[in-house]
Amino acid sequence: MYGHHHHTSQSQYRGHSPAPGYAPPPAGYGGSPMERARSYRGPPPGADPQLWQWFSSVDTDRSGAITANELQSALVNGNWTNFDLDTVKMLMNIFDTDRSGTIGFNEFAGLWKYISDWQGVFAHFDRDRSGSIDGHELANALGSFGYNLQPQILSLIEQKYASPPTGNYGPAPGITFDRFVRACIVVKTLTESFQRADTDRDGWIQISYDDFMKMVLMSP
Amino acid sequence: MYGHHHHTSQSQYRGHSPAPGYAPPPAGYGGSPMERARSYRGPPPGADPQLWQWFSSVDTDRSGAITANELQSALVNGNWTNFDLDTVKMLMNIFDTDRSGTIGFNEFAGLWKYISDWQGVFAHFDRDRSGSIDGHELANALGSFGYNLQPQILSLIEQKYASPPTGNYGPAPGITFDRFVRACIVVKTLTESFQRADTDRDGWIQISYDDFMKMVLMSP
Repeated sequence: MYGHHHHTSQSQYRGHSPAPGYAPPPAGYGGSPMERARSYRGPPPGADPQLWQWFSSVDTDRSGAITANELQSALVNGNWTNFDLDTVKMLMNIFDTDRSGTIGFNEFAGLWKYISDWQGVFAHFDRDRSGSIDGHELANALGSFGYNLQPQILSLIEQKYASPPTGNYGPAPGITFDRFVRACIVVKTLTESFQRADTDRDGWIQISYDDFMKMVLMSP
Repeated sequence: MYGHHHHTSQSQYRGHSPAPGYAPPPAGYGGSPMERARSYRGPPPGADPQLWQWFSSVDTDRSGAITANELQSALVNGNWTNFDLDTVKMLMNIFDTDRSGTIGFNEFAGLWKYISDWQGVFAHFDRDRSGSIDGHELANALGSFGYNLQPQILSLIEQKYASPPTGNYGPAPGITFDRFVRACIVVKTLTESFQRADTDRDGWIQISYDDFMKMVLMSP
């Protein structure tokens, strides 16, 4: 009735992508050299130096923790549009495991790997290398994750997450990287919530208004 | 079990707001004077001159129709953040009544009134005049629209639509204008979809996975 999420080994996709989705801020950003020297804290012992450098370049105010705004400023799609606030909030919710409201260095390691893995997935399914995912590529991606969705549902997902067509400038139509990740996580979250409620596994649930609203609003 | 949407007369709120949510593009935008003169089309007979001027300033390429990108560039919140793409797409879906993919002048009249009315609603419920809606103000607004939602559901809506707190710069935490409108339309859409499925009006529905996904994905 609905597909199970076969936890695909996303590491097989790594290295496909020339790292779209991330642009380091300009050098020197984040206050005067004096200020930076004063507030600079070194990496924790054993930290990956490259990862520490990424972390420091996103943490523009050198507070030692990344805010949602700092993350949104650092994350761009292949077409240079910024990630939506909703995607940034979704990433913060997943990786701010100590619920501090910010991403510390240890949390950043997980976030970084997650985005890299998704970049590989995106590059893998963007068959025509257009930089965005069209309806056919979306169906392939969700199908390979184990979601066998009706054409009408796939079409609704495409309409909801695609960027609108523009004139001669601006992003191409289709689903950009950050909205592709969000669409996939929304399908996963809604499907898993439905499956938890469907205790007899017949593809139907009985649900109250309150529980319905909670189920939907808890999804990104 | 769930509140009915008493269609409030939003005109009672008009005039409260110093028109946040809209900033005209810089003068001279939209090509050289030559290009503008060449492609310029006058207003239709009987058009409101002020409305035509707004329309023309949003239609930066003077094509006679407003694209989603032109609309997103023109619409800003009280704190100067741009509207989310999801809100812009929601507005296009409501007002692009001929499904051309763009907003013509006649469609723009409806869109303009809709945004003005919502600006009044927003100003009315932003009791502390902070420029954003907090949890208490959100509960008041949704309550006055006839939605008597559980505190847990209100809290989920606040978490989902609020902008995260920032440092000393950037938008204040809370729900900005465009996300407030989107949150209210989402609650309205989901509640009405649930009510349509709840034919015996007992606050419970039985629903298949496919219909559940469609119901959720059709909401903004």
